[in-house]
Amino acid sequence: MRLGARRRQAGMAAQAAGVDALLVTHLPDVRWLCGFTGSNAALVLLNRREARAVLFTDGRYTTQARAEAAGVRVLISVKPAAVAACDWMAEAGVKRCGFDETHTTVAGLAAMRAAVPGRRRRGMFLALEPLVAKLREVKDAGEIDKTRAAAALGCRLFERMLGFMQPCMTELAVAAELEHAARLGGAERMSFDTIIASGERSALPHGQATSSKLPRRGFCTLDFGVVVDGYCSDMTRTVHFGRAQAREREVYDAVLQAQEAGVAAVHAGVATHEVDEAARSVLRKAGLDEWFTHSTGHGVGLEIHEGPRLARRPADAVKPPVETLKPGMVVTIEPGVYIPGRFGVRIEDTVMVTRAGCEILTPSTKAWIEL
Amino acid sequence: MRLGARRRQAGMAAQAAGVDALLVTHLPDVRWLCGFTGSNAALVLLNRREARAVLFTDGRYTTQARAEAAGVRVLISVKPAAVAACDWMAEAGVKRCGFDETHTTVAGLAAMRAAVPGRRRRGMFLALEPLVAKLREVKDAGEIDKTRAAAALGCRLFERMLGFMQPCMTELAVAAELEHAARLGGAERMSFDTIIASGERSALPHGQATSSKLPRRGFCTLDFGVVVDGYCSDMTRTVHFGRAQAREREVYDAVLQAQEAGVAAVHAGVATHEVDEAARSVLRKAGLDEWFTHSTGHGVGLEIHEGPRLARRPADAVKPPVETLKPGMVVTIEPGVYIPGRFGVRIEDTVMVTRAGCEILTPSTKAWIEL
Repeated sequence: MRLGARRRQAGMAAQAAGVDALLVTHLPDVRWLCGFTGSNAALVLLNRREARAVLFTDGRYTTQARAEAAGVRVLISVKPAAVAACDWMAEAGVKRCGFDETHTTVAGLAAMRAAVPGRRRRGMFLALEPLVAKLREVKDAGEIDKTRAAAALGCRLFERMLGFMQPCMTELAVAAELEHAARLGGAERMSFDTIIASGERSALPHGQATSSKLPRRGFCTLDFGVVVDGYCSDMTRTVHFGRAQAREREVYDAVLQAQEAGVAAVHAGVATHEVDEAARSVLRKAGLDEWFTHSTGHGVGLEIHEGPRLARRPADAVKPPVETLKPGMVVTIEPGVYIPGRFGVRIEDTVMVTRAGCEILTPSTKAWIEL
Repeated sequence: MRLGARRRQAGMAAQAAGVDALLVTHLPDVRWLCGFTGSNAALVLLNRREARAVLFTDGRYTTQARAEAAGVRVLISVKPAAVAACDWMAEAGVKRCGFDETHTTVAGLAAMRAAVPGRRRRGMFLALEPLVAKLREVKDAGEIDKTRAAAALGCRLFERMLGFMQPCMTELAVAAELEHAARLGGAERMSFDTIIASGERSALPHGQATSSKLPRRGFCTLDFGVVVDGYCSDMTRTVHFGRAQAREREVYDAVLQAQEAGVAAVHAGVATHEVDEAARSVLRKAGLDEWFTHSTGHGVGLEIHEGPRLARRPADAVKPPVETLKPGMVVTIEPGVYIPGRFGVRIEDTVMVTRAGCEILTPSTKAWIEL
């Protein structure tokens, strides 16, 4: 059973971290470990003779939790799920419980401590780096299939929009059509707020669709993703309406070259900052790197932004340690150039890391498109 | 300037809490205080001679932050926004900085501390209850207008769906149509994943739309919301396809009566648990309260779920203290009854609290509808 194997993997990571229980409260981690998709949950993994898992949620999810989290004990409580979990662990004699320091809030930890009787509280909780999120970075075959399905739907949607977009149509109308087609194509939801940034607004890396109209002459950036079976897709294409100025074409070609260099740099074992540098150095040579104001990419899975991050090497290269790509990781490669008040271009693929290179999951054309 | 007034209000709350600076990292709070809508931000409010605010974000948002956060100094950094803010506060000689303990993670606090030189770190950070979220509970006229616009669009969408839904259509097709019409009607996005729960699935309080088909005979619950200008709407209606069984009609009538009792209980000064009890007691009398597995309502605003919470009085009534409704609060009233494996009914309005009672912002009919 695949979810059981994941729980064993997480249990081993918890054991290596020196705890006898792991409290998991980040919802995508909970889903990955036991299948439960509700909005309120805490999962306890116990490292005993046999790995045991107990899921805590509330009365809204009684039926759903039992159906989704097969093989896991489900306990319903009116208390916050993490508090119910700590109550239970105190009773069960857990001595040392690890929690994810990047998702547990200061108040959450205080409530967890308060749930444990005073004499046992000391040394009970250990802040850990995100163990489960780390495991989630490498996708299994089933996850790749779902991501592939989401990415393929994304590509079909882009094709469709090429036939739909017209100058003077609003960005919102484009987003509405795209999202409607996504739903009818089987998307559970969009993986983030659809970015349709046209004309001068293309210089906004995160310009969500507005009532601005598509230009008669100028760029339009489409950055969007869909969720299929819980897994996100992510792609960006930038198209041009009307005849381009030479400078626009130059910038587009440089971004495309940078994006292709980023993709070409991906293979198992490469350091994440080397992929960033492969893309960034192309823009540096073109004198455009000052306008490339973000990192080159990020992992994609149950969350639209997850590890690994493909960014510049930190000045202090010791901490965080250098990360390398592994087969089965799914990452975006998305350099962009944004010239404030003028225009911007971003091109993004989602790729799956393989031993020798990568497979592009979003194979829509990246060639110059003039509409 | 309205945002300036909000910052002064927050500054006074921070002063009362004994800090000379407030670090705000929860994005809806940042937006409420300075207008910035980006996905990475930290805002520092300084309680000096004059209230000063500094917004920290990254290079993706340089243009957008300066446009949106008028009157606020914007500093761009490659560091995490909260860390950049703490660097800056240490330089600026801040002695004591309050942070929201419900949104700052354990790792986030460690990174904040690490940004402050050792000798100043001691006593620098004070965990506070969510001061800004508390202020946001009471909406001003501009916020009410936006919420009203979102709620009115929600009502138009429900009307539209009454003419669209047919037995044997999939829940997903209903969601697709609803969301498309929402976009074309001006919604920035849906305020949460649209719930279309039909037949047996109506017994799932959070049954998001699936490929299940609408029944020839049975219920369908629609629970959805749209975002207009940042503000969320939230409404639920349950309709019936074909002729109802007597039991279905009984449950519907009881839920409707409970919902109306909840609405009737709303006025400035009432304790939140009394509103819950007004609705719950109706279902108790009807012998249905065991199937009412959630609380009666919640605040709505920049977030779909915010304070105040309309729930049962905790057994320990001292902590948390009893909360009362105030004029200008916007809350949902949404009792439901869910009979596992059979059917469920939920009816929900969003209402604005007034001195004498409330105004229903979602006036779509709640009468029995048979399609």
